[in-house]
Amino acid sequence: MTNLGGSDAVSVPAQSATLAIDEAVRARRRAGHRTLHLGFGEAGLPVAPGLIDVLTAAAQRNSYGPVAGTEEAREAAAGWFTRRDLVTGGEQIIFAPGSKPLLFALLAALDGDVVLPRPAWVSYAAQAALLRRRVLPAPITDAAGGVPDPALLEQALRAATTDGARPGVLVLTIPDNPTGTVAPVEQVRQVCAIAERHGLSIICDEIYAELCHHGSATSAASFLPERTVVTSGLSKSLALGGWRIGYARTPDSEWGRRLRAKLTGIASELWSGLAAPMQAVATHVLGDPAEVVDHVAASARLHARVAAAVYAEFAAAGVRCRPPQAGFYLYPDFAPHAESLAARGITTSPALARTLLDRHGIAVLPGQAFGDSSSALTLRVATSLLYGVTAEERWAALDAAEPVALPWIAEALAYLGEQLRALVDGSVTVYNP
Amino acid sequence: MTNLGGSDAVSVPAQSATLAIDEAVRARRRAGHRTLHLGFGEAGLPVAPGLIDVLTAAAQRNSYGPVAGTEEAREAAAGWFTRRDLVTGGEQIIFAPGSKPLLFALLAALDGDVVLPRPAWVSYAAQAALLRRRVLPAPITDAAGGVPDPALLEQALRAATTDGARPGVLVLTIPDNPTGTVAPVEQVRQVCAIAERHGLSIICDEIYAELCHHGSATSAASFLPERTVVTSGLSKSLALGGWRIGYARTPDSEWGRRLRAKLTGIASELWSGLAAPMQAVATHVLGDPAEVVDHVAASARLHARVAAAVYAEFAAAGVRCRPPQAGFYLYPDFAPHAESLAARGITTSPALARTLLDRHGIAVLPGQAFGDSSSALTLRVATSLLYGVTAEERWAALDAAEPVALPWIAEALAYLGEQLRALVDGSVTVYNP
Repeated sequence: MTNLGGSDAVSVPAQSATLAIDEAVRARRRAGHRTLHLGFGEAGLPVAPGLIDVLTAAAQRNSYGPVAGTEEAREAAAGWFTRRDLVTGGEQIIFAPGSKPLLFALLAALDGDVVLPRPAWVSYAAQAALLRRRVLPAPITDAAGGVPDPALLEQALRAATTDGARPGVLVLTIPDNPTGTVAPVEQVRQVCAIAERHGLSIICDEIYAELCHHGSATSAASFLPERTVVTSGLSKSLALGGWRIGYARTPDSEWGRRLRAKLTGIASELWSGLAAPMQAVATHVLGDPAEVVDHVAASARLHARVAAAVYAEFAAAGVRCRPPQAGFYLYPDFAPHAESLAARGITTSPALARTLLDRHGIAVLPGQAFGDSSSALTLRVATSLLYGVTAEERWAALDAAEPVALPWIAEALAYLGEQLRALVDGSVTVYNP
Repeated sequence: MTNLGGSDAVSVPAQSATLAIDEAVRARRRAGHRTLHLGFGEAGLPVAPGLIDVLTAAAQRNSYGPVAGTEEAREAAAGWFTRRDLVTGGEQIIFAPGSKPLLFALLAALDGDVVLPRPAWVSYAAQAALLRRRVLPAPITDAAGGVPDPALLEQALRAATTDGARPGVLVLTIPDNPTGTVAPVEQVRQVCAIAERHGLSIICDEIYAELCHHGSATSAASFLPERTVVTSGLSKSLALGGWRIGYARTPDSEWGRRLRAKLTGIASELWSGLAAPMQAVATHVLGDPAEVVDHVAASARLHARVAAAVYAEFAAAGVRCRPPQAGFYLYPDFAPHAESLAARGITTSPALARTLLDRHGIAVLPGQAFGDSSSALTLRVATSLLYGVTAEERWAALDAAEPVALPWIAEALAYLGEQLRALVDGSVTVYNP
């Protein structure tokens, strides 16, 4: 047994926690166990009108093409950002098969230790580990996640520097996964000012920006324009996780030009480019055609309505939670029930998640996977797989004036409420796997 | 100017040499300079019959799905390998958006310094650099590339070990890029025995395996089955570089099972999975339907015929070259003309490639990009972009009994021969950019 797990080979989680739970649920269902799947951040909606025709029309494009993307795709993305208050030229854009490879390439290209909000999406820390980079966590506030508490960030940076760390890159998520919240503009501004003072660069992951429940999110690029890279993609707003379309906007600055050269170099060695037919889809979508804009707006309304209903179930069970503001996530904290849970041996988020799955048939992720200490009784709850299993159900959910009244959603919500009450009461559950 | 090029950020080439030359040629052509493009390893052929229908039919698949690929795609790949004398189960397969991310993930997952043939395809060493891994070169033979000379490999491993290196992974390319040759079976067997004795694992890149001009290539997995990973993809055999479909076959061994868990973990953090509609294409193609098999066979015949004709032009100009045996590459060595080239100040492969581009309008890559010392007067010549510019020309090339008689190919060959003679004679060229 040689060459596995030695000193050069990297140490990574067996699998991204978010994708692993999805496979675990599929296995449970194959075995006949009813499972309410709140574990996986897939948008759970059908392909928007028109996109399949665009993909089909571009299918004869089989050349590699430019690493960063075709000129038309880059211009479309530039227009998309420009219409969203970040004036952008096509040369600032780079595409990739999803935003994950872009985030990885950015971490590889940028110098210094990686500062992450705590909690933060699972893959940032895992990618830093792949690059053998140190991670410095900075806690979020009680109001919103994705952006550290400014005072705690300042404190973490000072402590880290004293400790011999060399903070270099700050990753923000606006709107946030796992908390489903949007950091207030004033907080983003303060955090950018701190980043500027400490010479940090910023990666601002804005893949949920189109899915604000009310209003819109403000990019860190508004406050530290010359050193903020924005990443995004079509996996969430258009539910195209299975089509793998991501893009990044680099700054229009000398620093940005140098970063782009590096990023393109890394991209050319790691993935060559985004699949050409998918670039045609991106060109179309990022032009903001009316039927796409309407589809995204309907999706955001549905996410808002169902996330609010799921939030109400947690609140009714006496679980602490930030009210959802964007996307399709909640990050409940069972601290108010810590004592009664501890009496039943549940003292960590993995134990809590395991109990919910094994005894209550509800799949969620433990906060530990997002960087929280394991003793925090936090969970990441995804609400988007409640919309239905068939395309018909999902279209009905999108079109419904009151989606939570649809029988399959109403039933799932009732089941969730019942099981949450059983969990926090410690009563015998009605569920029998 | 912070956070770029410091000690954590990786150092990589500005861009993969192969993709960079492609962009340079496009820029030259936009500027109106005639350019014979022999620089880029794109198969240069149209999409095979039936594939666009498969892609279209699968376009509604927008879910992420399993990281390694759907069960049907993995079973199809397993059948494909099994029919090619490597008995394989679906659980041994992992898909990715191209074979580049797979090669990178394999290097990340496997331990030890990376042993490469010299010359070798550009991205292996660049990927090793991204992972801060040491590269140990081992020269190829005069007969074929992609696999080191066994005696020189043994010698390189001993010297490296004495030198404090810790060889761990051997990368082979069968058939080879850049030399367009197929290592003899006996040499592969010997090299695998050396790898086994030294405890190395093997990554065997077989992306050109379907494009042997005569006969077939033998995988290293035949000789070191329990520790050889095979990578492949549809970019070359089916000219689908722009669709980004790659896959790997891990060993059916305890080592293979542990590697797969690691590889899936890395894949889940770096790219999530191959685009779902592309997995449907892979499922179809890897089932070996007759029209796909015929298309690949016609492609291999065309590659063989044109590579042989280009080889003849180099031979006629007194340039040393291994006769092509697979794919669409040649690796000529201008050593016989070293003296006359030196008299004109051309003493390195980059200077030679630059002269060919600037003074003769011929784009090729310097051997230095493939790990050769810069003083070796070697070039990597790709022959596949000679088939035509339009889909009509490319279909005509595929269908022609004698493709080199087609006017656009005949003219390009004549131009190449004329310019090569001008270069080696030092005479004034007829080309005026």
